[in-house]
Amino acid sequence: MDFLFTGPLPPATLILGGARSGKSALAERIVESRGPGLYLATAEALDDEMADRVRRHRERRGPSWDLVEEPLDLVGALRAHARAGRPVLVDCLTLWLSNVMTEQRDPEAEGAALAAALADLAGPVVLVANEVGLGIVPDNALARLFRDAAGRLNQTVAAAAQRVLFVAAGLPLVMKDENP
Amino acid sequence: MDFLFTGPLPPATLILGGARSGKSALAERIVESRGPGLYLATAEALDDEMADRVRRHRERRGPSWDLVEEPLDLVGALRAHARAGRPVLVDCLTLWLSNVMTEQRDPEAEGAALAAALADLAGPVVLVANEVGLGIVPDNALARLFRDAAGRLNQTVAAAAQRVLFVAAGLPLVMKDENP
Amino acid sequence: MDFLFTGPLPPATLILGGARSGKSALAERIVESRGPGLYLATAEALDDEMADRVRRHRERRGPSWDLVEEPLDLVGALRAHARAGRPVLVDCLTLWLSNVMTEQRDPEAEGAALAAALADLAGPVVLVANEVGLGIVPDNALARLFRDAAGRLNQTVAAAAQRVLFVAAGLPLVMKDENP
Repeated sequence: MDFLFTGPLPPATLILGGARSGKSALAERIVESRGPGLYLATAEALDDEMADRVRRHRERRGPSWDLVEEPLDLVGALRAHARAGRPVLVDCLTLWLSNVMTEQRDPEAEGAALAAALADLAGPVVLVANEVGLGIVPDNALARLFRDAAGRLNQTVAAAAQRVLFVAAGLPLVMKDENP
Repeated sequence: MDFLFTGPLPPATLILGGARSGKSALAERIVESRGPGLYLATAEALDDEMADRVRRHRERRGPSWDLVEEPLDLVGALRAHARAGRPVLVDCLTLWLSNVMTEQRDPEAEGAALAAALADLAGPVVLVANEVGLGIVPDNALARLFRDAAGRLNQTVAAAAQRVLFVAAGLPLVMKDENP
Repeated sequence: MDFLFTGPLPPATLILGGARSGKSALAERIVESRGPGLYLATAEALDDEMADRVRRHRERRGPSWDLVEEPLDLVGALRAHARAGRPVLVDCLTLWLSNVMTEQRDPEAEGAALAAALADLAGPVVLVANEVGLGIVPDNALARLFRDAAGRLNQTVAAAAQRVLFVAAGLPLVMKDENP
């Protein structure tokens, strides 16, 4: 898996995994191996549990990263901040989707706009997303809607990305690699 | 992954994946690459949510497919409709299992009968199934029973199939390929 | 995948999978291919459902195995029972973690101690663990805590293991193989 940490990054990399699979840590190592990165956080630290997660992530990343927080306008933030030589880490798409749906925006339209934007940014992007569709069907309809939207978003972004990794127990499986 | 779409299909292919993983769309592309197929639907459109899913699937498939709906007697339907030169797509095993258990039939006996039938059909079959065992243990006992039965069915069919794919974000991983 | 069943076992093998994925049966075949093994069970048969699972496992394994039951002091049991020429199967880490958390012990410290112990045992160990982080976010906070702890434990043990397999529908994917 050395190629993940050497050579130029493709324009878009998607890193999929479950909760606590090590996907964010892997994404950080991939970005850091190319020099200083920009961390584009989609999380809002609305409660103690989330604040604790954000803190853990910050401690692990260290001070060399630039940081932008954008819960909703992900395409705008990418256009504003992508730059050659400074990879952007988007962490994570699934929280962004949750924000999009909370604001009653159309998740399929937003996903399509994101996929389109990934094709012509000024620098490479590494996007982290949760796989949430491999458990039993949730009891409540809202959770099912979210699960369906998350699965569709992952498909849309995976189709637009050149490289897709699936992470379990901190270990990557290469699902797609079309780096030119 | 070009080999998935060229050459003769093995007698039985199993396509496993989570909700909205793109497993049905991949199964459809695999079947369509071999000419007109038969869609064997195990779903019953009992509520609006399920009717909406069935409609989405129909729109995507287009009119060239033959269609049979069979919620329970999957082995009988396969024996009646399998034919050389017209692959059958079974979508999906997990809904069929749910129907089997709702009717108080024995899921292990039904799974074993299906696996046995796959060995001598007149034409190739592509079967879609959900992986549902990778979340937290469900609270209610019925969901645990179903999860266990689904896992056992997937193992039984995977052992009988020559080719098994795991799909995430629309991308296949080859788990088994014994195409002679 | 023949190499899984031939040649010397690495010091530590981790077998990850969902519920009813066939991970325990695969672990048993891997151990049995190297001669008689020791089954180190972390389960306590506290209710009928769990007793039924333990019984199924016993029937499948047959009488050639030695058996030790240890719900909590996994490191102590490994040090006491690991021996060259008799692989130990630990089934499973996720139940052990549940026992650890029920007893209010620190799961991260216990996981780190286990990983450290794996480096200098007298014989090879095959450890089975559940992947539980690929479903929708659980409603209750305790389930989220457990899910996070299970994911972290899997990462810790995977980093310490030389070989890591992911199992679905009874079929293994090799995630890591550093057998010297």
